[in-house]
Parts: sequence; C-alpha cells; structure tokens
Amino acid sequence: MFDLDSYLNSKRRRVNKALKEILESKISNKGRLKSAMDYSLMAGGKRIRPILCVAAAESVGGNTDDALYTACAIEMIHTYSLIHDDLPAMDNDKLRRGKPTCHLAFDEATAMLAGDALLTLAFQLLSSIEIINENHASNCFGIIQAISQAAGCEGMIEGQIRDITFERTPITLSQLQDMHYLKTGALIVASIYAGVVLGGGTQKQIEQLKIYGKNIGLAFQVTDDLLNVEGDPALIGKATGTDDLLHKNTYPSLMGIDQSKVFAKKLIKNALQAIDNFDNKSDSLRAIANYIIKRKK
Amino acid sequence: MFDLDSYLNSKRRRVNKALKEILESKISNKGRLKSAMDYSLMAGGKRIRPILCVAAAESVGGNTDDALYTACAIEMIHTYSLIHDDLPAMDNDKLRRGKPTCHLAFDEATAMLAGDALLTLAFQLLSSIEIINENHASNCFGIIQAISQAAGCEGMIEGQIRDITFERTPITLSQLQDMHYLKTGALIVASIYAGVVLGGGTQKQIEQLKIYGKNIGLAFQVTDDLLNVEGDPALIGKATGTDDLLHKNTYPSLMGIDQSKVFAKKLIKNALQAIDNFDNKSDSLRAIANYIIKRKK
Repeated sequence: MFDLDSYLNSKRRRVNKALKEILESKISNKGRLKSAMDYSLMAGGKRIRPILCVAAAESVGGNTDDALYTACAIEMIHTYSLIHDDLPAMDNDKLRRGKPTCHLAFDEATAMLAGDALLTLAFQLLSSIEIINENHASNCFGIIQAISQAAGCEGMIEGQIRDITFERTPITLSQLQDMHYLKTGALIVASIYAGVVLGGGTQKQIEQLKIYGKNIGLAFQVTDDLLNVEGDPALIGKATGTDDLLHKNTYPSLMGIDQSKVFAKKLIKNALQAIDNFDNKSDSLRAIANYIIKRKK
Repeated sequence: MFDLDSYLNSKRRRVNKALKEILESKISNKGRLKSAMDYSLMAGGKRIRPILCVAAAESVGGNTDDALYTACAIEMIHTYSLIHDDLPAMDNDKLRRGKPTCHLAFDEATAMLAGDALLTLAFQLLSSIEIINENHASNCFGIIQAISQAAGCEGMIEGQIRDITFERTPITLSQLQDMHYLKTGALIVASIYAGVVLGGGTQKQIEQLKIYGKNIGLAFQVTDDLLNVEGDPALIGKATGTDDLLHKNTYPSLMGIDQSKVFAKKLIKNALQAIDNFDNKSDSLRAIANYIIKRKK
C-alpha cells in the first residue's frame, strides 16, 4: 500500500529546502524585497505543482533531483500568481496559507514587486547552469516554452482575466471549464510535462501524462470550489464563502454541490485510466489523483 | 556625418513592426488582456533599449535581424515595468507616453495582469525557436540569464524597491547611484550585452560595451531627473515636477541642476572613451550617447 502522506511530506521537505537554498544563493541583497519574497514563498504551501513535477519525472524512471530546480521555478510562478491575485485590485484577500497576505504583511507596492521578482527569478532559474548543464538544451528550451505559455497570456493570466470578467455574469459550463483550464490546469499540465521530459519520458508517456494532468487539474479546481463552500477556514488557511460573496461562477454554483462531486470523481477516473499501463513507479501519481478530491485543504 | 534621427526612426519602425507581429503571432485570444498589452506596448515609446540592443549587434559586425526579437523581449520587460510602476500602489501616474496610463485606460487588475503577461511573454520569446534556431544554445541561455538578472530582484525590481524606500529619506549620492544603476542601468547594460553576443562580439568588446552601457544608463537617468524638473510635459508625454512632489531623491535634488548637467556630460565622455577604438559601425552608439543628454523627451 502506497503511503501518500509520507511521500508528500518527504517531497515537500525536499522542495522547501531547495527553495530556501535558491533564495539564499540567488539573492545576496537582504532587504524588504527578499523578505517579502521569502514570506510568501516559504509560507507553507501544499507544493502540489512541484511535487507533481517530481512525481512525473519518477514515474518514467527519473529521480527527484532531475526535476527539483524546475519544480521550484514552477512553485515560484504559482506563488507570484497568488500574491498578485490577493491584491486589493484583484480578489482583496486577507489570508493566504494561514497567514496575512503579502500586501498586508508588507504593503501593496512591495507585494506587487515581490510577485514580479518571483516570476522573473523563475525564468532565471530555468535558464541557470544548475539546470542546463544536466539536460539537453532543446529540452530546457522546450520546458521554458511550456511553462511561459502555461503561465502567460494564453494560459494562467488569460484565465485570471476571464475569472474577473465572468464575475456577476452568467456563463456556460464550457466557458467555466475553459477558464479553469487556463487558470490552473495549464500550469499543472506544464509541471507534469516538465517532469516527464526531465525524467527521460517518451513522447507517448508525455501524451498520456498530459491527459492525466488535464483531468487532475480540473478536479483540483472543482475541489477548490467545493472547499470554498463546504471547507473549514482553519484547515484551508484562508476564508471560505468568498466565491459566493463575489458572485463568482463556480462548479457548485453552476452544477450544484452533489453534481460537482460526481464530476470530480469522473475526472479522477479519467486521469487514472490515462496512465493505467504505467508501472508501480506511478503509484505516487495515482495516490495524488485520489487525494485531490479527498483533501480538506 | 551620422544621421541619428533617420537611424532612430528606421530602427524604431523595425522594432514596432516586429512587436506588432509578435503580439499577433503569439496571442490568438482577442480580448481585454491582449488589448491592454497592445495598448501599452504600442503606445509609441522611444524604444531606446531595443535600439541599443540592435546597435550593439551592428557595432560588432552583426545586423538588425540578429538581435531584433531579443530587443523586442527587452522592450516588453521595460513596458511591463512602466505599467506596474504607474499603478496607484506605486507612483500613481496618470499619463505615460502621452496617453492615459494602462490602469486608467482599462482598470487596475487588467493593468497588473497585462504587465505580468508582457514579462512572461518576454521569456517565452527569448526561448522561442525564432531565436534559438539561429544562435548557439549557450548564448541564448546566457542572454536569458543576463536579462532575468538585470530585470529581477538584484536588478530593476530591487532598484524600484529602493526608490520607494528612499522617498522622504535623505540618502547619499552613492546610494542614489546604486539605486539608479539597479533601476535603469542594469537592463540597459543587459540590452547591450545581448546585442553584442548576438552580433558575434568578442569578450573584449563585451567588456568595453558594458562600460559604455553603464555610463549612458546613468546619464539617461540623470537626464530623466533633469527633464522632470525642467522638461516640457507636452514633449515628454507625462507630468513633470512629480519627483519633487513625491520628495524623491534625484540628481538635481542632491547635486543641484548645474552639477547634474556637468555629471551627465562626464558620463557620456566615459561612454565614448570606452569604445574609442571601435570603427564607424559604432557611429550609431556614439550618436546615441550624445543624444541621451540632449534629448527633450
């Protein structure tokens, strides 16, 4: 029986240690900017994206070190997006990962710049000798392409614009799904793609894991929406009920709570089917898929 | 006699055309995000950084096409920094390049995301086949490194944090100079570095052009400060007197207006000396250096 808790804890520790080392080695200035970057980056996130990146590398025969720095770059991009998303001009959130949001702990200007700096540092890391010396150049460029596309104006940022635009506007389920794929799914798929490439996966494995990623990414969002309705703020580390307050379009608001749960289960089934011919090195990915819809935070 | 006006106009047209093509080819979604990116990117900037990049490539025997896409990526980074800098949480500026700032033409959330998207697109471009197919991989990685370092938390963004932190606080000339090197100088030096590398320059030429870049970058900032005191808002395309209102530390406020002008001239002299053994392919760089302190906008 695969022990997911100890797997997640062990990988989370590796990611956290590497993130801390990167902050120390790449930023010599000690000041407000570094403090704000450190504050948000080291605030104890779930590290789902970097763990998926590492697990994807392992699933095709690679190991954690093959993908660790790339995984950290992706977590930096995820963190920057949270910092900017929390700002008053966007969601105006007060709590993130159980702590005051970056702009409350520091100030708005510092939070915005800390986000900018984490995004920039991610690309500095993705093109650094630590990564490119160990991998084929074309793989490294392909990964920068995949991540920048997933995070950019035809990925995560377009998803965020749609999320804001769609507030208080009735939309279809298909519009909601496209928006969520852009906002969270694309970067999750890119995390997995990067892991498979760095782990030495085949083109077929890449395609299979992309389907896996697309399905768990969507399931992750459906669960996030459900937690915003039914979750415990103390466990989640941020306020609940906010989507409803902001009249956001969510799976529960469009499909109802029960149908959303059925849908999430179906997505996880699809994800597992996509990798059903993978060997036991993919047990972590299977366990993560099951965990995504059962999580309480 | 080198005709700087027609040189700048011709390069500016090349840069503008390429930027427009990149927006069209890389962004298929037509919506608010693309409109805001387009609005700020195509608002008619001076294009100093991309022109320096191209001119640096030419000065060592390369041509415009060698550096054009990289030059465009740098202009995207510069534009993103302006959009974020103009936001209410930062400088709260109303005019930029003679038009309402992005957050006034759209809204704060859209402006922030358009900035994020331009930064991300810059790295997408720097790792795209258009650039990497024509150049050695190590040069491409080196350029991404140089640009991300210059734009990041030990470059431009650190400069912006210091700029905010130093407001209303007396600082020394050396602190002011460090701040300005970080805020504007570093990206100018990186633009020139990228151009020389792409144009096939030698290590010696790189070092010489870095000195040139450092000096004109600083002179550019001194002149910017002077224009904020003495310039014509109609020509500059933004309000003047704002530094004084915000109690910003500037060269005129620390050295006085006359000494600032003397200092700017000395910097330009240093820049020209650094490349005095370069042939007439560097006439553009020489003319740009002289133009920087004479400009009225």
